[in-house]
Amino acid sequence: MKEISPLEKLRLKYEPAIPSFLKKISSITFEKSNVFLPVNEKLQKLFPNTYKAGVVSLKEGSKKDSFPLKIGVVFSGGQAPGGHNVIAGLFDAISSLHKDSILYGFLDGPSGIVENKHIKITKELIAKYRNVGGFDLIGSGRTKIETKDQLAASLKTVKDLKLDGLVIIGGDDSNTNAAILAEYFLQNKCETAVAGVPKTIDGDLRSEHILTPFGFDTACKVYSEMIGNIAKDALSAKKYYHFIKLMGRSASHIALECALKTAPNYTFIGEEVAKEKKTLKQLINELTDLICKRALNNKNYGVILIPEGLIEFIPEIKLLIKELNSLLPTIEEKTLKSLKEKIVHLLSKEAKTTFESLDEKIQDQLLLDRDPHGNIQVSKIDTEKLLIEGVKKELKKRSDFKGKFNGQDHFFGYEGRASFPSNFDANYCYALGFIAASLIKLKLTGYICAVCNLTASFEKWEAKAVPIVDLMHLEIRSGEEKPVIKKALVDLNGKAYKHFVSGRKLFEMEDNYLSAGPLQFYGEKEITDSLPLSLTL
Amino acid sequence: MKEISPLEKLRLKYEPAIPSFLKKISSITFEKSNVFLPVNEKLQKLFPNTYKAGVVSLKEGSKKDSFPLKIGVVFSGGQAPGGHNVIAGLFDAISSLHKDSILYGFLDGPSGIVENKHIKITKELIAKYRNVGGFDLIGSGRTKIETKDQLAASLKTVKDLKLDGLVIIGGDDSNTNAAILAEYFLQNKCETAVAGVPKTIDGDLRSEHILTPFGFDTACKVYSEMIGNIAKDALSAKKYYHFIKLMGRSASHIALECALKTAPNYTFIGEEVAKEKKTLKQLINELTDLICKRALNNKNYGVILIPEGLIEFIPEIKLLIKELNSLLPTIEEKTLKSLKEKIVHLLSKEAKTTFESLDEKIQDQLLLDRDPHGNIQVSKIDTEKLLIEGVKKELKKRSDFKGKFNGQDHFFGYEGRASFPSNFDANYCYALGFIAASLIKLKLTGYICAVCNLTASFEKWEAKAVPIVDLMHLEIRSGEEKPVIKKALVDLNGKAYKHFVSGRKLFEMEDNYLSAGPLQFYGEKEITDSLPLSLTL
Repeated sequence: MKEISPLEKLRLKYEPAIPSFLKKISSITFEKSNVFLPVNEKLQKLFPNTYKAGVVSLKEGSKKDSFPLKIGVVFSGGQAPGGHNVIAGLFDAISSLHKDSILYGFLDGPSGIVENKHIKITKELIAKYRNVGGFDLIGSGRTKIETKDQLAASLKTVKDLKLDGLVIIGGDDSNTNAAILAEYFLQNKCETAVAGVPKTIDGDLRSEHILTPFGFDTACKVYSEMIGNIAKDALSAKKYYHFIKLMGRSASHIALECALKTAPNYTFIGEEVAKEKKTLKQLINELTDLICKRALNNKNYGVILIPEGLIEFIPEIKLLIKELNSLLPTIEEKTLKSLKEKIVHLLSKEAKTTFESLDEKIQDQLLLDRDPHGNIQVSKIDTEKLLIEGVKKELKKRSDFKGKFNGQDHFFGYEGRASFPSNFDANYCYALGFIAASLIKLKLTGYICAVCNLTASFEKWEAKAVPIVDLMHLEIRSGEEKPVIKKALVDLNGKAYKHFVSGRKLFEMEDNYLSAGPLQFYGEKEITDSLPLSLTL
Repeated sequence: MKEISPLEKLRLKYEPAIPSFLKKISSITFEKSNVFLPVNEKLQKLFPNTYKAGVVSLKEGSKKDSFPLKIGVVFSGGQAPGGHNVIAGLFDAISSLHKDSILYGFLDGPSGIVENKHIKITKELIAKYRNVGGFDLIGSGRTKIETKDQLAASLKTVKDLKLDGLVIIGGDDSNTNAAILAEYFLQNKCETAVAGVPKTIDGDLRSEHILTPFGFDTACKVYSEMIGNIAKDALSAKKYYHFIKLMGRSASHIALECALKTAPNYTFIGEEVAKEKKTLKQLINELTDLICKRALNNKNYGVILIPEGLIEFIPEIKLLIKELNSLLPTIEEKTLKSLKEKIVHLLSKEAKTTFESLDEKIQDQLLLDRDPHGNIQVSKIDTEKLLIEGVKKELKKRSDFKGKFNGQDHFFGYEGRASFPSNFDANYCYALGFIAASLIKLKLTGYICAVCNLTASFEKWEAKAVPIVDLMHLEIRSGEEKPVIKKALVDLNGKAYKHFVSGRKLFEMEDNYLSAGPLQFYGEKEITDSLPLSLTL
């Protein structure tokens, strides 16, 4: 048998806490809301069968006859802590419903559905993955099911396997895909219900009912441990400015949550930069001002958080990326050099100026391949180094600067995506698995699972399902208008952001760094079962 | 009052576990060993008063009259988790001895002794730093006390403050400094006893009695958490090779300990590379072979650990660094470009060939300033990127390679140096503080504190003190022969290394990654109170 770590042995035995009514899946029933969003005719046309479905609340009803369910589950996109617990929840839910229930796991992401590559998940198998990080039980992938052939192949798979339901665990683009499949199955008289589960460390899949995607809590806790440690080190050594870039795609949710947890000297919030239309030069100037001011107080060290998506929000770079996004698919050049030469001539004057002002390495990074959903891969752009170099250059112009400046760059991303889930994420994901199973049992399709009232004790958590189409809008992707779930950005009127703003001036000069410390699983509840601050504030 | 994190609030209340006899400092007595090392005449001449002192064992004796002690304490060099607990131990020890005892903390490293910059450590002050990471209570620094003026100023400080003892918490170079001060004080009829405390995450300050420096355990646990998470991610996403460089200076102790904790696919051990005289080309070839072999098994991902000191052990680069070390102090050039031009002509033919074969960025990094002790700053050399680029180039030559190679580089260092100490480091450091106080009470000078029998329950820990001169040899530093503590490298005949070797072939192809998980403070002892594997194997 494969050796496992002592902590893994313990975590496998952890029993996630979820509301008791959810565990009685044979008696679960539902209520539909009759409050609907204003009609969007284009969306209605694209989703005639799943439009205007109404939010669902799951409740305890009277016990009914139990029958076996056959469900397929798939991971889509990047890892997020807790994924295995969604599968454990699904497995336990359908097993408790009937001993003949079957759970299939599609392998290596949505391509596993298209190609019908799957494994059967058994009691023995899932026992090795409970409360453990990663998506390695069945793997994940980024294939988008969108062509006619892919849709038809997926339909064939669910029919061949006689699935009652398909559960797609993914982020905004993957849940968009879930909605498309749900609609497609109905249009083709297939009764397989499709349920989405909100997964992403980035925190950008939220709505009135989806209070947080799973994995966000754990990832922020892991990053905050590191940030807190680095801040303590900075404060002790007093010689480095640490520029810490954080994963999270466009939105700055992770940076904001980590800032609340660690109180660094400065945190960029992309959404704020966009709102105030700050240029790169302005950002560098403001940061340099701060570094000069701290030097006057004999502080030549500090901690700066940078959301990886920042670059997309800086107006002139946003324009450049937009132009590049439409130009890149039209150009076929073999070498980066020839691609660059060609593209420079096709950019608008403004975009060209921006492009040429950037270091060569950043230019190259902006030309890298887009992801399968057409998004720029912001994690590959060295924004943290761009800022360090910018500050260095600017400081040379500041004749009154008598301090020292040593920048250390860091990038945290992969460290947090496959961690053991926090108790919160372990519990939350297990509940999401039960909800997904309930939706399929109730033959509800095209919904994304949600838990409301998360700040109350787990017994009072409310199980909901939101029509995925309710979360969608139309967006230009790779040159075409497409229905997609709208990415939830940081709400500049929200409590979390306001709380951050109320403290940040003080943190710029005073070093009130907080040591978040490592994720704790055992001991006092306040520590082990805490929720993201952006939920509790 | 400064806000602190919920975990910090809890950790402040933790009571470190140490042997009961150590707490009864007023009755502590000692035994000296009369087994001595073979005489080294040069060292004997340099340390006439502190040479041939014999290892000391502390024991419980009969209670004696208590008197107040005045002690100064200083942090020297990089942060290591547990430092504050050494100070807490010192404080509690001398406070329990007599209420009028005084503990001074010298500020910002050894320069605080030279300049007599200090604070008085009170009960209220130390209460805010118990079991908390960082060295920020009094700061640290890298000043080396070596000139006549510096020595005289230090003597003046300890006399002015009427210190019974001076405690230097530091690594090999800092403890060398402690030995020099101890000898200098005696030669100048000053009775201030000097005690060293073995601190360094790098693990390279070890001997028969110093089983581990403090901080090593925690740092390895923090890095292993990250490595384990990244490995899980690699296994789930199946698309990246993660090249993880680990802090640790020359020696590969950290890489070895983390390899034992996480079972990555490949771990470089610098000492092994030196022994087998492997060139950079060979290392890259072997790694490329492995990547090709894994690709045949459809595995285009993996985890590779790189000790930051690896570069120093590669024979041709070792020669180059040696030549650079002697040349650099003799050349004064204003720009890197002119320095490089000049140095190329002064290098031997072999070193020149090596230098010119390296990427420009690595060349620049090799020319960076040395640390105050004359060591090259290996943490600033991007060995991880050098290897990724090397593998990329080599793969292009392998026509049979049909896989994909995407390298992701990481560097972990600052993340682990100022973490909350593990329970082991918290306990160990607290004991070291009591031992340092006892040595001063017993008027023993020039010793470094040690705890033996660490693998037994804490009540059975043995308190020792080792003459620092016993750890020294003569070494060429900045062109001069100097007495320094010999850096302890990985023992290629040791159990830890042998255990690693016995498993590594399997790990190359099978992915037996271990998820070490985050440092746990509460719960089952097996998890919370574990020791470094290199101690327990």
